[in-house]
Amino acid sequence: MNFPENVIIQEVALRDGLQNEKRVVATAEKLRLVERMIGCGIRRIELSSFVNPRLVPQMADAEELWRRVERPPDVLFTALILNERGLERAISCAVPHVGIYVSASETHSRKNSNMNIAEALKEARLLLRKARSEGLRARAGVMNAFGCAYEGAVPLARTLEITMGLLEEDPEEICLADSSGLANPLQIRKYIERVRETAVGKALSLHLHNTRGLGPANLYAALEEGISIFDTSLGGLGGCPLISGAKGNISTEDTVYMIAELGISSGIDLQGLIKASRDFEALLGQAFPAVISHIEQ
Amino acid sequence: MNFPENVIIQEVALRDGLQNEKRVVATAEKLRLVERMIGCGIRRIELSSFVNPRLVPQMADAEELWRRVERPPDVLFTALILNERGLERAISCAVPHVGIYVSASETHSRKNSNMNIAEALKEARLLLRKARSEGLRARAGVMNAFGCAYEGAVPLARTLEITMGLLEEDPEEICLADSSGLANPLQIRKYIERVRETAVGKALSLHLHNTRGLGPANLYAALEEGISIFDTSLGGLGGCPLISGAKGNISTEDTVYMIAELGISSGIDLQGLIKASRDFEALLGQAFPAVISHIEQ
Repeated sequence: MNFPENVIIQEVALRDGLQNEKRVVATAEKLRLVERMIGCGIRRIELSSFVNPRLVPQMADAEELWRRVERPPDVLFTALILNERGLERAISCAVPHVGIYVSASETHSRKNSNMNIAEALKEARLLLRKARSEGLRARAGVMNAFGCAYEGAVPLARTLEITMGLLEEDPEEICLADSSGLANPLQIRKYIERVRETAVGKALSLHLHNTRGLGPANLYAALEEGISIFDTSLGGLGGCPLISGAKGNISTEDTVYMIAELGISSGIDLQGLIKASRDFEALLGQAFPAVISHIEQ
Repeated sequence: MNFPENVIIQEVALRDGLQNEKRVVATAEKLRLVERMIGCGIRRIELSSFVNPRLVPQMADAEELWRRVERPPDVLFTALILNERGLERAISCAVPHVGIYVSASETHSRKNSNMNIAEALKEARLLLRKARSEGLRARAGVMNAFGCAYEGAVPLARTLEITMGLLEEDPEEICLADSSGLANPLQIRKYIERVRETAVGKALSLHLHNTRGLGPANLYAALEEGISIFDTSLGGLGGCPLISGAKGNISTEDTVYMIAELGISSGIDLQGLIKASRDFEALLGQAFPAVISHIEQ
């Protein structure tokens, strides 16, 4: 085992978590949640995407959110960018860090971006280049890096090929996203090993979902491989819009509990996080899938 | 990694799953569920405990259940035994296999059996001896082998000491039970390694709970250690009666999905299992915590 000493949590509840929620959360509520997250020790927050507000009403307040959010110097805020219009909006909001992704599934790529993988990769590289030239930090990622709800398992060769294309633009971090929650621990280990050989010297992060119950096992396998940056969502809010009934992102509180049990530091206050999650749950009027936050202690 | 080639699932929904359910399930419904389980390929079923029917009304039909259940020769049925009265009842029902446990927590032992650990071990050894002398097969187990909801972490030395005591009676299998769901993957690996050194030549099984979200990671870590016998509950029904709101046993369907994804055989039909779980859920009028059975496929 090759556990990292510290783990960095990127909180994605405000973006990946909320994006499919019909009930639009007020900007002030989002800002309160950001404050609670930071108060619990979270130091990386995906605040929004910049997408068409008609398609994703939950993200329509992106500009207002970025204008109003307090940005302590030790907290990294990031936004998801899908196209040039989004990048321009992010730049105009002085967004310091962006995430730019290509899907490893042809079907998903077409549905998500109206481009095939090759076209989407070309577009992502342009976006990465522009972001860098404007002084933004960037993570480049592969969506459905392990499997796709439409197509099933994604071959390692394809994930590697996209990774190599993205690396041409020198992003500071490569992220493998199990967007459909189809990865298994063996695949996690194998893909990480090979992507590491390809992306030497780059930070490598994982974005895991718990769609089919393998999220915690995949997280553990990734920790055994020494991965130290994980996207997680408060309460486990989120999910694959392609799969009805599916659970969402791995939850921040269950992740923080696991890594603490393994003796790894995250700098995050679990009890505070649980309270924030329960309050967020009440705000949305639903039961989140996170486990640790639902036991009476 | 040292994955087993095959995994044996011991289905515990009818005992550990149901024992805390207030709504008493009719014997005919239990029998139907047994048929469905067997139809899906399950070959080991914990059918009941033999306990005081006033304390656990759900188990009051144990005699009727054992009398009426069809017992195909390739299916192992077992019962949980807590005391001599229970063993006598099991013998009179021609129960072929029993599980006999000692808690590794003093507080839990007193609450569960009104005996301290030393007394409970002595009693368990008497029960094991009697069971063997009557020709019954037996599993001997350690409850709260990793931690206790009252006392926190359980030292390895204590779990080993109880295991050694149980081994004096030559049970065919040793089971480590994470009854409070407090184990973590590192502990799982360490305890398994040491218990294996102690229980040479004995089958070693794990009984895992998902109380705090670590069930799947613990399962994966145990598979990496080569463990091939797991107690699981349809839908993840069950739970620790000491912890309100806690999720229960690791679910049979999520376990079967994981091991299949890892290329390990269980001989169990996942889709059939999911249907059985959804029907069982409807019968009990509640949402089970299992993940894979709740996605629309």
